[in-house]
Amino acid sequence: MLLTTLYIIGITAEAMTGALAAGKHHMDWFGVMLVASATAIGGGTVRDVLLGHYPLGWVANPQYLAITCFAGILTTWIAPQVVRFHKVFVLLDSLGLIVFSVIGCRVAMDMGLSPLICIVAAVVTGVFGGLLRDMICRRPPLVLHKELYASVAFMAGGMYYALMHFAVPELIATVSTLVVGFSIRVAAVQFGWSLPVFRFDEVEQAEEKLEPKA
Amino acid sequence: MLLTTLYIIGITAEAMTGALAAGKHHMDWFGVMLVASATAIGGGTVRDVLLGHYPLGWVANPQYLAITCFAGILTTWIAPQVVRFHKVFVLLDSLGLIVFSVIGCRVAMDMGLSPLICIVAAVVTGVFGGLLRDMICRRPPLVLHKELYASVAFMAGGMYYALMHFAVPELIATVSTLVVGFSIRVAAVQFGWSLPVFRFDEVEQAEEKLEPKA
Amino acid sequence: MLLTTLYIIGITAEAMTGALAAGKHHMDWFGVMLVASATAIGGGTVRDVLLGHYPLGWVANPQYLAITCFAGILTTWIAPQVVRFHKVFVLLDSLGLIVFSVIGCRVAMDMGLSPLICIVAAVVTGVFGGLLRDMICRRPPLVLHKELYASVAFMAGGMYYALMHFAVPELIATVSTLVVGFSIRVAAVQFGWSLPVFRFDEVEQAEEKLEPKA
Repeated sequence: MLLTTLYIIGITAEAMTGALAAGKHHMDWFGVMLVASATAIGGGTVRDVLLGHYPLGWVANPQYLAITCFAGILTTWIAPQVVRFHKVFVLLDSLGLIVFSVIGCRVAMDMGLSPLICIVAAVVTGVFGGLLRDMICRRPPLVLHKELYASVAFMAGGMYYALMHFAVPELIATVSTLVVGFSIRVAAVQFGWSLPVFRFDEVEQAEEKLEPKA
Repeated sequence: MLLTTLYIIGITAEAMTGALAAGKHHMDWFGVMLVASATAIGGGTVRDVLLGHYPLGWVANPQYLAITCFAGILTTWIAPQVVRFHKVFVLLDSLGLIVFSVIGCRVAMDMGLSPLICIVAAVVTGVFGGLLRDMICRRPPLVLHKELYASVAFMAGGMYYALMHFAVPELIATVSTLVVGFSIRVAAVQFGWSLPVFRFDEVEQAEEKLEPKA
Repeated sequence: MLLTTLYIIGITAEAMTGALAAGKHHMDWFGVMLVASATAIGGGTVRDVLLGHYPLGWVANPQYLAITCFAGILTTWIAPQVVRFHKVFVLLDSLGLIVFSVIGCRVAMDMGLSPLICIVAAVVTGVFGGLLRDMICRRPPLVLHKELYASVAFMAGGMYYALMHFAVPELIATVSTLVVGFSIRVAAVQFGWSLPVFRFDEVEQAEEKLEPKA
C-alpha cells in the first residue's frame, strides 16, 4: 500500500524528467510518451524480461502505463514549472530510485532467487530506466559516468535483502531501507559523492592492437 | 491467409529499406542481414518478449527470418532499382505498418489482454522495427520525430480492437482496418500531417539543475 | 566440463576487453561492471530472451556474473598489462567466440528447434555481447563493419549442428568445432579476411525519397 503510493509518485516524477529529455531532442508526442514510459517503467520491464517474470507489471496493470503517458504529455505543457521546481524533482527522483530498488529486490526474492541476483534485480530496476532514456535519446548514459546512483540502488537492495532475510517485519524493512537509501542518495547529490572513474586513454591505441586488422 | 500474404510482402519491403540503411553505414553482409531482419521482424519480436508470447514468430517459422535475410542481401544487388521505385516502397511500407499493427493487436487479444495493452501491442509491432534499425545504425529515431506513424498504428489497433469487440466478422474487421489505416497513412505522407513536436531548449540549462552535481 | 572451463576463460577475457572500452569512455566502476558483463554474458542473455529459455544462465549461476564484474574491476588495475599481452587476448577472444557459438547452438538443439534457428542461436550468442558493448558505449558496431566474426560463429554453429545431427559423439563434435572454428578465426585475423561490405551512398538522397515528407 505504502509502496504502491510511492511507486506511483516515483513513476510520475521519472516520466516527467524523461519527457524533458524528449523535448530537448524535439520529439513528437509519441516520442514524448515513449521516452517518458521507458524512463519510468523501463527498469522494471528489463528486470522482468531478464528474470522471466511474466506478465510484466504494466501489462498486468495498464493504468501505470497510462499514468506515465499522461505525465509525459502533461510535461509538454508545464515544462517551465517542472524546471522551476527542479529541487522537488531531484528529491522525487531519489525517492523513486529507492522505491524501484526495493520493489525489484522483492520481486526477485518472491521468485526464490539467490542474494546476488536479488541485489542485481534492485540495481536493474533502479538504473535501467535512465539508461534506456539515454540510449533512445542518443546521449552519454549518465548513470555510467558520474553519479552515485547505481551504488545507492545496490546498497538499498542489499539492505532490504538482509533485513528480510533476518525476518525483520516487512513494513520496518521497507521504511528503514527507504529512509537510509534516500538519505544517502540526497547526501551524494548534495556533497558530490561519486564512484571512482576508470580512465584509460591509452586504450585507443591498445584497441587497435586488440582488434583484428581486417 | 490474406494477412499472411500481406505480412510476407510487408517484411520483404521493410527488410529492403533496412538494408539500404545498412548500406549507408557501410556494413558488411552480416550487418545487412541483421539490420534488414531487425527492421522487418524486430517490432514483433519486441512485442512478443514484452508480452511473454513464446515462441517468437520467427523462431516458430524460421522461413520468415530466411526471407528477411535474403531480401537484405538481394538489396545489395538491386539497390538502385529499389530507389528508382521508391514510391512503391512507400506504399508497401504503409501497408506493412497497418498489417503489423493488426497482427500485433490480434496477438494481444488472443492472450486475453486489456484494450490498452492490445493497442500498445499494435503500436509496438508497427513501430519498433524502425526504432531498432535507427538505434543499430546510430541515427536519430525517425518515428519519434516527424512522422504520423505511431499514431496511425495506434488508430489501426484501436479500430481493429473495437470492430472485433463488437463481433464484426474477422475478415471484415481486418479488411476495413487495412483500408482505413492505409488511406490515412498515405494521406499523412501526401499532405505532410504530423503530431505536434515538443521543443524545450531551455532544458539544457534545466537539466543541469535537475541532475546532481557530481 | 571442458566447455565450462573454456566458457569461464572466455567470459573473463571478454569482460576484460569490455572494461577497456568502458575506460575509454571514462565510466565509473558501475559502468565498468555493466559493460564488462554485457560484453561477456550479453550474447547468451539475448539468445535466452529470444528463445524464451528461462532462467537465464547467470540467473541460475550467479557466479558467472560475479566473475565478469570482478574481471571488469580487476581490469581497471591491470589495464596496461592487458594491453601489453594483447595477442593473448585476441586468441582468448577467438576461443570465446567459438565456445559461445557451440553453447548457443546446443541450447537451441536441446530445445528441439529447427536447424536455422540453432545456427542463429550460435551467431546471437557469439556476436551480441560485442554489439551490446558498442551500443552502450555509443560507438559504431564493429562486428557489423569489418570483421569475419559473425560468419565464423555461423560456420561453427553449422558445423556443430551437422556433427551432432549425424550422431558424432559429443566430445568429438565439440573439440573438432573448436579446433576448426578457432583456426579459421585466427587465420581471418592474420590474413585480414572479411565479408563484402555494402556501400550505397546514393542512399541519402534515396532516403529522402523513401521517407515521407512531414
